[in-house]
Amino acid sequence: MSADEPPGFHPSLRNPTLPRIGLMMGDMTGIGPEICAKLLASGRLDDVARIVVVGDSRVLDLGCRDAGVERPRVEFMDLGNIDPGAIPRGDISPESGRPTGETLQHMTRMALAGEIDAICFAPLNKAALHRGGWKYPDEHQMFAAFTQHEGFFGEMNVIPQFSTFRVTSHVSLRKALDMVTPQRIESAVRLAHATLRANGIGQPRIGVAALNPHCGENGLFGDEEIRIIRPTVDALREQGIGCSGPVSSDVIFLKAMKGEFDGVVMMYHDQGQIATKLLGFNKGVTVTAGLKAVYTTPAHGTAFDIVGQGKADPSALEQAVRIAARLASSGRALLSPVGP
Amino acid sequence: MSADEPPGFHPSLRNPTLPRIGLMMGDMTGIGPEICAKLLASGRLDDVARIVVVGDSRVLDLGCRDAGVERPRVEFMDLGNIDPGAIPRGDISPESGRPTGETLQHMTRMALAGEIDAICFAPLNKAALHRGGWKYPDEHQMFAAFTQHEGFFGEMNVIPQFSTFRVTSHVSLRKALDMVTPQRIESAVRLAHATLRANGIGQPRIGVAALNPHCGENGLFGDEEIRIIRPTVDALREQGIGCSGPVSSDVIFLKAMKGEFDGVVMMYHDQGQIATKLLGFNKGVTVTAGLKAVYTTPAHGTAFDIVGQGKADPSALEQAVRIAARLASSGRALLSPVGP
Repeated sequence: MSADEPPGFHPSLRNPTLPRIGLMMGDMTGIGPEICAKLLASGRLDDVARIVVVGDSRVLDLGCRDAGVERPRVEFMDLGNIDPGAIPRGDISPESGRPTGETLQHMTRMALAGEIDAICFAPLNKAALHRGGWKYPDEHQMFAAFTQHEGFFGEMNVIPQFSTFRVTSHVSLRKALDMVTPQRIESAVRLAHATLRANGIGQPRIGVAALNPHCGENGLFGDEEIRIIRPTVDALREQGIGCSGPVSSDVIFLKAMKGEFDGVVMMYHDQGQIATKLLGFNKGVTVTAGLKAVYTTPAHGTAFDIVGQGKADPSALEQAVRIAARLASSGRALLSPVGP
Repeated sequence: MSADEPPGFHPSLRNPTLPRIGLMMGDMTGIGPEICAKLLASGRLDDVARIVVVGDSRVLDLGCRDAGVERPRVEFMDLGNIDPGAIPRGDISPESGRPTGETLQHMTRMALAGEIDAICFAPLNKAALHRGGWKYPDEHQMFAAFTQHEGFFGEMNVIPQFSTFRVTSHVSLRKALDMVTPQRIESAVRLAHATLRANGIGQPRIGVAALNPHCGENGLFGDEEIRIIRPTVDALREQGIGCSGPVSSDVIFLKAMKGEFDGVVMMYHDQGQIATKLLGFNKGVTVTAGLKAVYTTPAHGTAFDIVGQGKADPSALEQAVRIAARLASSGRALLSPVGP
């Protein structure tokens, strides 16, 4: 907390029933600081969450200068771990990646200790994290390690129309085929069900993708639909989970866009990513779902080409905070994604 | 040829240098007859092709009534093989599927004999064809059988922005993985190169998709990119074919939409179909590429829900005729897709 704030007027005390969301400013070489400054200065989150920014206070000052806003009145936990004057912006920097990971690790400890209810972070740079010593295939696996998670968890991609989940992710397509098992499909559908409920959808309608072209054409083009996917979906539906499928993967996104599904569960990485990139998911929100702490982030990147110009759009970050607040409020549903 | 046409004024004699395109009215239970009638009556093809409609003359009369147009002056080869009064419309009918296949087989003989330069057909119903006795996995394989084709051929999907081609198609994903070989990739890229040139693009720029997520992430998620795809693409480029890749399949369509590629070669069915269905390829054109006869068709279906209402849009059919005319004019390039 900044020393110069009169405690009685501190923004975090405005409404103690609001969830307390830790906001991390992303990799400081990117647009994170300026979109955080712009969003905080807008006051648009005042009724959504009690925000505590975690990081280096000088980085928020930098963001305010970039965004052309006065420094907003916000609770700040100053780790003093990044000197923005020492690191060039608009480029990958291990010197920025290292403390970026440290800040996220610190915030995870805060979340696990109950000091914050969820974590929202502005865009990271994966290569900078990696070069800075955080040797994980992606940030989701880093968060799983931070929370000592065992078992199924996964990336959830959110746009206003629907959300996506994956049975397999960053593995070869050949390995993904071997990982399409009843157990993983069940875990992914249950995670989708629990997370969509936590995000405010009472009775989620979940579409489960097929693996083979034309849904296998009744076994002519592969039998995973018959042997594995359909029995698993049927069994889950009998247990009260609103899922259907398998649905041909070249049709499922058209159906979801028409409003037939709240969530889509894909079998492999590109099955989802081809569609989501075309559908503008880069304006959406990415959630790490199924861990003991809630993590959300805008789906777009650090946008090195426009850093410091004050024109970066904070709206996806705003959605990320809103979703973090909703998931935090319904945390219990998220933490036990096992029942209907 | 209708008996009541004065030969000197017959439309097919207007410009003998135009390609002679056989037009098949599709499955008569669908919107084929009415979009053919509407398109022919519009006169929009008069400078594009000499059209000869092949089928049953009563079906064109039906289409004219549906479309609310007078019967256009057009060369007609009346096979007298479908009585539209005997077959209910708006539903799958083996009685329609059987003569639909016969008409296409007849037109193939005409094309191979040089009596027509290419075949364009209005939407078929695959289930009706199948139940009518034409037991092929899809119409492309039926055409391959009609032309006694051996070797590589494939479906090409065309929208104004770019066209797509596939290394594998209607097989299980597991089998598709085994079929991603240097030979098939080379065949698909050469076919794309030749067909795009035949369709009017002098120096086609072809993007070749990766197989694994993130292009295999330098071998971390599968090595087909390193072992198979990149060496094949590099070798073809050295031979003068303008191809590049592998490109991550969740990025390649964004690049193509931005104008970076004229053609995209995908490794498996859904990799392409997920994208093309979202990008409105149902308004585009499908070509069977690589056979001794040229076949084109609108990508949309028989639209049973609006049959007979005269509101079906003939614009994709018009594009299909235009592409047939271009491919017919450059037939030689299409028939020998082996050189740069």
